[in-house]
Amino acid sequence: MTTASSPTAAILVIGNEILSGRTQDVNVQFLATRLGALGIPVREVRVIPDVARTIVDTVIELRARYDHLFTTGGIGPTHDDITSACVAEAFGVPWEPHPESMRLLEAYMAPGEFNAARQRMATLPRGAVPIPNSVSVAPGFTIGNVHVMAGVPRIMRAMFDALEPELGRFDPVRQVAVHADRLLEGALAEGLERIQDDHPGLELGSYPYERPDGRRGVALVAKGTDDAALAAVHDALWSLIVTLGATPVEGEPPP
Amino acid sequence: MTTASSPTAAILVIGNEILSGRTQDVNVQFLATRLGALGIPVREVRVIPDVARTIVDTVIELRARYDHLFTTGGIGPTHDDITSACVAEAFGVPWEPHPESMRLLEAYMAPGEFNAARQRMATLPRGAVPIPNSVSVAPGFTIGNVHVMAGVPRIMRAMFDALEPELGRFDPVRQVAVHADRLLEGALAEGLERIQDDHPGLELGSYPYERPDGRRGVALVAKGTDDAALAAVHDALWSLIVTLGATPVEGEPPP
Repeated sequence: MTTASSPTAAILVIGNEILSGRTQDVNVQFLATRLGALGIPVREVRVIPDVARTIVDTVIELRARYDHLFTTGGIGPTHDDITSACVAEAFGVPWEPHPESMRLLEAYMAPGEFNAARQRMATLPRGAVPIPNSVSVAPGFTIGNVHVMAGVPRIMRAMFDALEPELGRFDPVRQVAVHADRLLEGALAEGLERIQDDHPGLELGSYPYERPDGRRGVALVAKGTDDAALAAVHDALWSLIVTLGATPVEGEPPP
Repeated sequence: MTTASSPTAAILVIGNEILSGRTQDVNVQFLATRLGALGIPVREVRVIPDVARTIVDTVIELRARYDHLFTTGGIGPTHDDITSACVAEAFGVPWEPHPESMRLLEAYMAPGEFNAARQRMATLPRGAVPIPNSVSVAPGFTIGNVHVMAGVPRIMRAMFDALEPELGRFDPVRQVAVHADRLLEGALAEGLERIQDDHPGLELGSYPYERPDGRRGVALVAKGTDDAALAAVHDALWSLIVTLGATPVEGEPPP
């Protein structure tokens, strides 16, 4: 099932540990790939600190600009986990105990362990729908077009698995790719631009690579949803490489 | 040499290949770590597509908000390499051939290879100062408080090495860290918040980890520039862990 116009998405990474360089983010690539396969392209990513005013303002801005906003990080039990309260403020709704989450979390804890910090994890914006996940009790949720997920990749992925069927399926972006060793971007730029001009509806990119054995080359990739145009561009890219005296190979080079 | 107030930085990643999930960004972590060591904390990161209007608007916004803006990507010779022209537009200056870069690039090329696409790489905003790099002819440059760098990590790093002495050295953020196996965030949240409240000038974070052998625990990290406060917080974190019945260990766990 496809529709004419695909929805768009933005990702908001909330966490001082990414901005300080302590942690390498890997959630953006995961989400971008999975959302792209659903036909929901990611148009923007922001990384911001655990600062309430910044989180509130950015959620308001991005959720107005894109069809979906996915946030990662800041939903644990500690003092710097303020995403949930900030999302409530961005929506102008109370941040209040969520009865079902309270029951689930209390049942999960040993007697006496359901302390104030853990009860805070079951406090959600009014109207939020929890995102269940199979690997933890971390309280992800959806409210309106905002999906609030964990920062820990294993938990975030489990949440996305649960969320995915709710997002719908649209016309995913497809790609054709050709590559060639000993090809240089500077030599092919002009021909590539001509092919791009002939097919403005597709997105052409060139990606220099270096193989483990030191061989260098360029991969040419076209993305879009018009299969006839993709096929035509594939052939044009192949011919361009031949014209430049290199040997085209189907697809992208192995990583 | 240190100064009282450190400058701030933002990173702007320009590239469809990051937003599509094709490429895992690794430049943000590198830049955040190196800038942090200089005492220039990164406050925001954005990832945006190769769309001229978006690049121009974002450069204008971020360079006004932060002391330094570092961009990565979009400076090669192909049609989608539009960063340089967009930065010129953001500064309201002409985008014109840069005589020194033209000479260098032409000297580097074999006769007849200095085509229009390659001449485009030596076209810079008026007033730009090239950032030399030891590994390529990619045309990085600084204009005002904006530093335009390559997206290819190896080239970006060489450019940053060249740029670093120009940025100055300020009071770098320092950290203390303690960790303990079998510690849970939900159990320590309350004590951690008390310590944070006692030292509002520091930034306290807790980071759950899982070791390769499956053991789980939490690392507690305090960051700041007040050494006496850092020492006091270190001792308070150590005591908190002991109080909770776990065994504190100095530093963060090995990755």
